[in-house]
Amino acid sequence: MKTFLDCIPCLVRQALDAARRVSPDESLHERIVRDVLQYAAAMDLQPSPPVLAQRIHRRLRQMSGLRDPYRAAKARQTEMGWAMLPELETQLAAAVDPLTAAARMAIAGNVIDLGASPAVTASDIRRTLQSALSAPFKGDADGFRRAVDGARSILYLADNAGELVFDRLLVAQLPHGRVTVAVRGAPVINDATLADARAAGLNEMATLIDNGSDAPGTLLDDCTPAFRERFDQADLVIAKGQGNYESLNGENKPIYYLFTVKCPVIAQRVGQPPGTQLLMPSRRMGSRSTIPTSTGDEP
Amino acid sequence: MKTFLDCIPCLVRQALDAARRVSPDESLHERIVRDVLQYAAAMDLQPSPPVLAQRIHRRLRQMSGLRDPYRAAKARQTEMGWAMLPELETQLAAAVDPLTAAARMAIAGNVIDLGASPAVTASDIRRTLQSALSAPFKGDADGFRRAVDGARSILYLADNAGELVFDRLLVAQLPHGRVTVAVRGAPVINDATLADARAAGLNEMATLIDNGSDAPGTLLDDCTPAFRERFDQADLVIAKGQGNYESLNGENKPIYYLFTVKCPVIAQRVGQPPGTQLLMPSRRMGSRSTIPTSTGDEP
Repeated sequence: MKTFLDCIPCLVRQALDAARRVSPDESLHERIVRDVLQYAAAMDLQPSPPVLAQRIHRRLRQMSGLRDPYRAAKARQTEMGWAMLPELETQLAAAVDPLTAAARMAIAGNVIDLGASPAVTASDIRRTLQSALSAPFKGDADGFRRAVDGARSILYLADNAGELVFDRLLVAQLPHGRVTVAVRGAPVINDATLADARAAGLNEMATLIDNGSDAPGTLLDDCTPAFRERFDQADLVIAKGQGNYESLNGENKPIYYLFTVKCPVIAQRVGQPPGTQLLMPSRRMGSRSTIPTSTGDEP
Repeated sequence: MKTFLDCIPCLVRQALDAARRVSPDESLHERIVRDVLQYAAAMDLQPSPPVLAQRIHRRLRQMSGLRDPYRAAKARQTEMGWAMLPELETQLAAAVDPLTAAARMAIAGNVIDLGASPAVTASDIRRTLQSALSAPFKGDADGFRRAVDGARSILYLADNAGELVFDRLLVAQLPHGRVTVAVRGAPVINDATLADARAAGLNEMATLIDNGSDAPGTLLDDCTPAFRERFDQADLVIAKGQGNYESLNGENKPIYYLFTVKCPVIAQRVGQPPGTQLLMPSRRMGSRSTIPTSTGDEP
């Protein structure tokens, strides 16, 4: 999808928040904000929001001299995820429909984006996760099950590092030996990289690859040929997070998008209020469910 | 006070909202957003937020070709204000301390900034106003009474058109013959102009002047010499709204600021949460109350 005018002030604010997390240097904060403003004043709005976010975080890494500013935050998130895993596994063992329950847990994990803030504690995350598990859920669970059962190869596109431990639960429900988990090719915000995926043990459960890109989404043109081949060959793509939805929406490909609706622009696009947990098929999947399929790239 | 980095994305968002209110033309929305981004990328942050807001709304009027885009909204607000006046006068007649009660009503009126939206109805405003009247109030009521009693000349700086009818209640409590009400010199957003003040009947209660400026605040350098003379000569300035606070804070002058805290930057500055109704003396006033005086222009 394209970048909406509403996305711009939001991305400027995110840039300022990120600069403050990365450094206490106020002149750096000002430089990054002015840089984003100048770039955005002339930017092409056709590419998706992750294109602007990619540029913001590249500049932030350059200006701060930090290759992976969120490394400590990601490690802490992963640690908290492991601490919560046993209790989720217990819930899952009691579930009537473990595939849907695991999908819901993986989607709920998507809310702990906030976990990148040092102030977020394990009990904050537990509370957030539990309330996400009871949040409004709009999902095409039957279609998802059929797609999973029918797929010989599944490409699972991860999102934030902090939710990888929750992704384990869903990956474990997918047909063994058919799943490839893909992460970002380089650090960007708190998005998952190979190191994060290994720390969550996903390398022991699935083939693990990276996409070669440092965008907080999946910009196919920016990914390696090897990743694109996997993408093209997959019978089913499971795409976690709003960034993957923003960048892949409109692709003619069987995709299930799993994410928490985090902003008014996406809420309007998918026709569901912010906070909704979505399990949404791409238009290519078709659907007999009550939730709309992804609309392609027409506004 | 200076413009904080946090103010910039907020002002970009406000520019987009304003452009959408003024015109359905999406290319105009995009042009105004790009214009603000480009200007903000290089702007001096020392002047107060109303300086950027002034520029945004000048450009919006130029680009849309509308001299007073909010005229209809302001007229509707004033009409709604008149409809609510009898019930507020009844409440006021029963008040033990009418000066403070009228000040609270005038401050509460400051929340109906939203009234510029066509969707806002009289019952929305009534509800907003009633909840504002019971909102947390931090006020130096005793100091305010002393300042009012001791002043031979009072300059009352109005804010939005929609609250002028509520300002009547407070002006009526001030010493007759000593009050000058000042409004903006030209239309900007839904701020009060001479026409709005006359529609609220303030010309029958006080001397009415305009400040010659089209900023949504009081930028003294941008005001007419006649206004500045009134400002200099006043024993007491009563300044309504956040814009007047942002632009006058730091002036060495006896001022009482009456406003609803509307954003996190101001909340942090005044040490009170958003939504608080403030009756706050400038540092020059001194105070024996429990609320801090305005901090001057040091962050």
